[in-house]
Amino acid sequence: MKYPKIWKMLVAAMCLALLGCLQAQEFKGHVSIILLGATGDLAKKYLWQGLFQLYLDEAGKGHSFSFHGAALTAPEQGQKLMDKALESLSCPKDLAPSHCDELKGQFLQLSQYRQLKTAEDYQTLNKDIETQVQQDGLWEAGRIFYFSVPPFAYADIARNINSSCRPHPGAWLRVVLEKPFGHDHLSAQQLASELGSFFQEEEMYRVDHYLGKQAVAQILPFRDQNRKALDGLWDRHHVERVEIVLKEMVDAEGRASFYEEYGVIRDTLQNHLTEILTLVAMELPHNISSSAAVLQHKLQAFQALQGLQKNSAILGQYQAYSGQVRQELQKPDSYQSLTPTFAGVLVYIDNLRWEGVPFILMSGKALDERVGYVRILFKNRAYCTQSERRWASEQSRCLPQQIVFYIGHGELGHPTILVSQNLFKPHLPTQSWKEVHGEPGLRLFGRPLSDYYAYRPVREQDAYSTLLSHIFHGRKESFITTENLLASWVFWTPLLDSLALEVPRLYPGGAENGHLLDFEFSGGQLSFSQQQLEVLMPELGSVPKPSDFQVLRAQYRQSPLVTAWPEELISRLASDIEATAVQSVRLFGTFHLALSGGSSPIALFQQLAMGHYSFPWAHTHLWLVDERCVPLSDPESNFQGLQAHLLQHVRVPYYNIHPMPVHLHQRLCAEEDQGAQSYAREISALVANSSFDLVLLGMGTDGHTASLFPQSPAGLDGDQLVVLTESPFRPHQRMSLSLPLINRAKKVAVLVMGRTKREITTLVSRVGHEPKKWPISGVLPLSGQLVWYMDYEAFLG
Amino acid sequence: MKYPKIWKMLVAAMCLALLGCLQAQEFKGHVSIILLGATGDLAKKYLWQGLFQLYLDEAGKGHSFSFHGAALTAPEQGQKLMDKALESLSCPKDLAPSHCDELKGQFLQLSQYRQLKTAEDYQTLNKDIETQVQQDGLWEAGRIFYFSVPPFAYADIARNINSSCRPHPGAWLRVVLEKPFGHDHLSAQQLASELGSFFQEEEMYRVDHYLGKQAVAQILPFRDQNRKALDGLWDRHHVERVEIVLKEMVDAEGRASFYEEYGVIRDTLQNHLTEILTLVAMELPHNISSSAAVLQHKLQAFQALQGLQKNSAILGQYQAYSGQVRQELQKPDSYQSLTPTFAGVLVYIDNLRWEGVPFILMSGKALDERVGYVRILFKNRAYCTQSERRWASEQSRCLPQQIVFYIGHGELGHPTILVSQNLFKPHLPTQSWKEVHGEPGLRLFGRPLSDYYAYRPVREQDAYSTLLSHIFHGRKESFITTENLLASWVFWTPLLDSLALEVPRLYPGGAENGHLLDFEFSGGQLSFSQQQLEVLMPELGSVPKPSDFQVLRAQYRQSPLVTAWPEELISRLASDIEATAVQSVRLFGTFHLALSGGSSPIALFQQLAMGHYSFPWAHTHLWLVDERCVPLSDPESNFQGLQAHLLQHVRVPYYNIHPMPVHLHQRLCAEEDQGAQSYAREISALVANSSFDLVLLGMGTDGHTASLFPQSPAGLDGDQLVVLTESPFRPHQRMSLSLPLINRAKKVAVLVMGRTKREITTLVSRVGHEPKKWPISGVLPLSGQLVWYMDYEAFLG
Repeated sequence: MKYPKIWKMLVAAMCLALLGCLQAQEFKGHVSIILLGATGDLAKKYLWQGLFQLYLDEAGKGHSFSFHGAALTAPEQGQKLMDKALESLSCPKDLAPSHCDELKGQFLQLSQYRQLKTAEDYQTLNKDIETQVQQDGLWEAGRIFYFSVPPFAYADIARNINSSCRPHPGAWLRVVLEKPFGHDHLSAQQLASELGSFFQEEEMYRVDHYLGKQAVAQILPFRDQNRKALDGLWDRHHVERVEIVLKEMVDAEGRASFYEEYGVIRDTLQNHLTEILTLVAMELPHNISSSAAVLQHKLQAFQALQGLQKNSAILGQYQAYSGQVRQELQKPDSYQSLTPTFAGVLVYIDNLRWEGVPFILMSGKALDERVGYVRILFKNRAYCTQSERRWASEQSRCLPQQIVFYIGHGELGHPTILVSQNLFKPHLPTQSWKEVHGEPGLRLFGRPLSDYYAYRPVREQDAYSTLLSHIFHGRKESFITTENLLASWVFWTPLLDSLALEVPRLYPGGAENGHLLDFEFSGGQLSFSQQQLEVLMPELGSVPKPSDFQVLRAQYRQSPLVTAWPEELISRLASDIEATAVQSVRLFGTFHLALSGGSSPIALFQQLAMGHYSFPWAHTHLWLVDERCVPLSDPESNFQGLQAHLLQHVRVPYYNIHPMPVHLHQRLCAEEDQGAQSYAREISALVANSSFDLVLLGMGTDGHTASLFPQSPAGLDGDQLVVLTESPFRPHQRMSLSLPLINRAKKVAVLVMGRTKREITTLVSRVGHEPKKWPISGVLPLSGQLVWYMDYEAFLG
Repeated sequence: MKYPKIWKMLVAAMCLALLGCLQAQEFKGHVSIILLGATGDLAKKYLWQGLFQLYLDEAGKGHSFSFHGAALTAPEQGQKLMDKALESLSCPKDLAPSHCDELKGQFLQLSQYRQLKTAEDYQTLNKDIETQVQQDGLWEAGRIFYFSVPPFAYADIARNINSSCRPHPGAWLRVVLEKPFGHDHLSAQQLASELGSFFQEEEMYRVDHYLGKQAVAQILPFRDQNRKALDGLWDRHHVERVEIVLKEMVDAEGRASFYEEYGVIRDTLQNHLTEILTLVAMELPHNISSSAAVLQHKLQAFQALQGLQKNSAILGQYQAYSGQVRQELQKPDSYQSLTPTFAGVLVYIDNLRWEGVPFILMSGKALDERVGYVRILFKNRAYCTQSERRWASEQSRCLPQQIVFYIGHGELGHPTILVSQNLFKPHLPTQSWKEVHGEPGLRLFGRPLSDYYAYRPVREQDAYSTLLSHIFHGRKESFITTENLLASWVFWTPLLDSLALEVPRLYPGGAENGHLLDFEFSGGQLSFSQQQLEVLMPELGSVPKPSDFQVLRAQYRQSPLVTAWPEELISRLASDIEATAVQSVRLFGTFHLALSGGSSPIALFQQLAMGHYSFPWAHTHLWLVDERCVPLSDPESNFQGLQAHLLQHVRVPYYNIHPMPVHLHQRLCAEEDQGAQSYAREISALVANSSFDLVLLGMGTDGHTASLFPQSPAGLDGDQLVVLTESPFRPHQRMSLSLPLINRAKKVAVLVMGRTKREITTLVSRVGHEPKKWPISGVLPLSGQLVWYMDYEAFLG
């Protein structure tokens, strides 16, 4: 039964006339909801039901509604399809069937189908809404356009809404968008800027339906309501790891054309799992009901994500996938897809709260179970003095301590929040969450369910119902802003690019996967725990690995040459430097090491930082071979690379670090500031005979070394120990140790890596002592030793 | 049956004559072993058996032996007691009883009792040995004196041996000493220097019998033989924690007079557990059979131990202990002992291999089981993709990975080496260790025994037998050198001193202890997991705790005053600084913070380093308020305190750190180097209006602040921003911000803590603006805010 127009008019008039009318009866204006794609799958499955729920929740609270199902189909046919979709609407269990029928009848009365195809269709829609509001004597509060349509249709619809369907000023417009929101950073940016030309940021509601799932939506409230207990726990000192997991049993059959283009990372990690990660990791705002504060803290969490490397991820593909793609996309028999259907990604967060805590994101199809969860495992810092036979289990501090937001499915079958009993008893809103005591014998995350305080929702609610309510109430924190979306793509795109040609590990699917997809991390890298099984990937296995080769020793320019694959070479150089350091410290008490900048030494710095525990850092002085005339804090500064990749990880005393003084009196490398002379004095004062124990050099493709360039006389000879030079590359101004100073060193190592160095390597092998043409040819220690370290690519091409 | 003298002579003559004689028959000289305390408990229980074993192992290999049991008892009586001790000698199981009897007979023939009481007794002993060797036509290889006597007897015996019983040059002397080796660093040093006046370092063998226990003795060989597997595991990146545990069920009844003086830390932690710790932690020498290398690496491990704080330990005492002490030592009924019978200690090692890895040492009496073990638990870095129902348990990388050296007793009942099967299959010498498969159902360290590779000795051997063999072979690495002993006391003595008046937690003993002695660590501190139960310690509980008090706000010298207990005060100041920092960065992009040195700010630095994750360190510039004219690397330097307690733990960019230039051109604070002027220029260049965002000051008992001292005019007024000053305390020369510069700050916080400040606090509260008498009274920011932070002791006395 439709509310008679006259009744609505009366309510509105009464409320406007009588300021004292009760809030529940206060008329809050008319809201039109236009569902685009009203007859599609998503609409049928979730959206109509969500709109009905919204109607049930809100209709009594003062708003009036109209629901417009829209699609491209002609009116009559479309109405039929829509009626079919609406048939299956259901009421909550606690509603009497007769009352349900009544409400359902009202909802159907308010809902009608309309074709939205041409610009005129949109104009008509707009006019119809205006007319209806006017006729009924209402005033318009706002309009919601829900885009449940493929992304290619977005622009057209957006243009039409913007030009024809905006409500009058004072009423709001909200457009709801469904993923995918682009394919990478560039496409997401294009899409965003296109939408931005039609809508204001506050008008757009990008849906990630995981944010509507009850356990996920509870993460921030849980953190807020348990602040006291969590304040001393929610950080790198206490959290061992965070697992964010979404496992599916189904595969991509029937959806191959979509899946082949997206793959698992774009399908679930870039959006659902990353959103969840930010909810766990973000600094908690004082007021979590402030959308602006939540969104801003979330953005900060995005910005703190440490960049991913190729080896931050492992990829898999279920064996049947390529066949499904060949069939569904009519590909030739030889076609092998590289699209991953399984991925594990290791994420670190580069801030003081989370530094070093592994966040493991994992998702895949054709796995052994369907389940989603976020698990925060705490470090075990207890020692239990009694024999473990005597532990009263759920109380023992020595058992795992964890908090799990169980999203659904799996062994439990419903959203659940689990907190280990040896941690604390959490506060949860009792009107919406109730304590559960599961079946005995059920084990979760290594412990029986009885070890946890466990809570499930009093009433389970579909994610879309929750999100529709949030849209209606303008709760923007449950949606993806443009800034957040782009921040997510900035984070994921480099990894996606670097993995584009990676061959995923094949897996049989289901329980048969066994340990094949287990993985582990070490030193920021992720790898499968098991060696690749040959039977699954016969095309691999013949490529030689670095460790298959020996380090070669030979001569180059009459000096010793060490040559090997890069990994082996760096490891060898690091060991040689350590040996030199240990010997210097034993003999002289200190080790004076001068380091070059550039990219090759970075791997060396990392190796030294990670693997060399006996390195006498406390007695090592670090000097720079050369520096660009930029502030030390500039990303281009050689010192920056040294700081980021070495100094942050080892303990060199502050006063043993000697950056080049390129920045004095707020100027860069001004002659009159005498920076070079002052560095020379520092060297003379601290380094005996100005003879470094070891100088690490590189070689440019033009034969330059340090910052000594061909055809530029500075620093090639003479008395100056440190000089200002000009580089042909930006930034042009440089400071550099001079050749005579370098040649006073006890040991000089020249590191040359990569295919681009092949030509200069060949050339320099033939030239004599011509430092003016090839500065590197002037490197010849007076009484010290010179050793060349070249990888095979630089040496053998 | 004794070897006939003529036979021995023949062997010796033959071997000397015929160089080609077989090694087994080569005569290697005569060895005399003198067991002092031959009729005592240790001798009866272990030492005679150990000497018999030595005879069995070595007699066939070319040495001849004589064994002298010695004591103070008169000869006849002594011989009887000794004969009784020797009756129970047993042979290894694999020896036929008849052969055993024969060998035992030989051993008894070679063993005789002698009274060693007077200087003459020792001279006689010496003469007897010489005569015997001569008569038998042997040559002397060496003498072993085993001191199985109380430490008070050491000096006398040592003097006699040194003056009368040294063998002729060319033969060796070895004296074997039993613990205790002192009571603290001083007494150990005295004892060592006393012994050092009689014996050379290489002559002394200090026994820690744990080093002879088979599982302990295998630690270094295990690390050596499994180098390849362990190389990538044995470090802070992979080890989660190390537990070194020695639990006893017995209590100290009957030994109260010894125990009351020593307590558990001196009884087992300072020696046994620390020795084991060094074996686990030391850098592994290339050649572990080099005693010198092993001992040197061990010493380095000692030196890397991080100093213990009072809260590095938790102490317990079983409830019956005080009663036993009262009874055995005839103490009055009111006597309550403070001697701990249980201790847990958290040790960190300050080197790059182990930084941050907790080593938990635990030992106690009257516990629920008797067991000893070292457990190395590895970090779990795996994610297992399959549901845990499907894990094939012993293979899963997600289960705990650990290596345990099980010393003995406990569930297993014998020495065992356990390695989780998901780690690697270890190499062990098959002639001495065999794989075991224990009873099904047996669980150890959280997993069934079947999850481990487990090995036990082929033949169990008593620790003393092992050590006697090592003494005989001169394997010094199994003993405690003077250097190592003193290093251990240097490590333990400060803790023992600081705990001397600590009341241990009482525990009932045995299984009833429940969770009472469970403990946990956090931020380097150890604490019991359970709150103190009042019923056990009724005398505690009434003392107010810091958290019982509110922070008081008031006025001091017309400025706001915050006063609280120290912990609360520091926490409040840290929060205020953080709030100021966040606001400054928001408004200006940077935060300029000038910090004072001294002891009070250290707690603040630690608080800032540990708890303040949102502190904008990357945008903070750190300046010094004042500095002592010492090199920055000097422990007296204010900068050092800042580096050790703050900079090491947070990430302030190198170029945002501004130490005072007190050390220029290799000189300290020379006027002509213009360090003060240069710091002033740096401030003017980087800090807008030279107005710091926050300056943290202290107040000396003489009313000084920064390094501005009473009666010294420098820096109290005038234009200079930074000045050189003179302190009445060493080091006299200082550099300091001037009062005018301090007073330009936007905010000044003065932190005053401790009872010693009470008088000056009262005095300064009354004086006006008299900076020449009380420099602190000149602190009055021009337009900024001044806040005083005083703890109750400084403020209320």
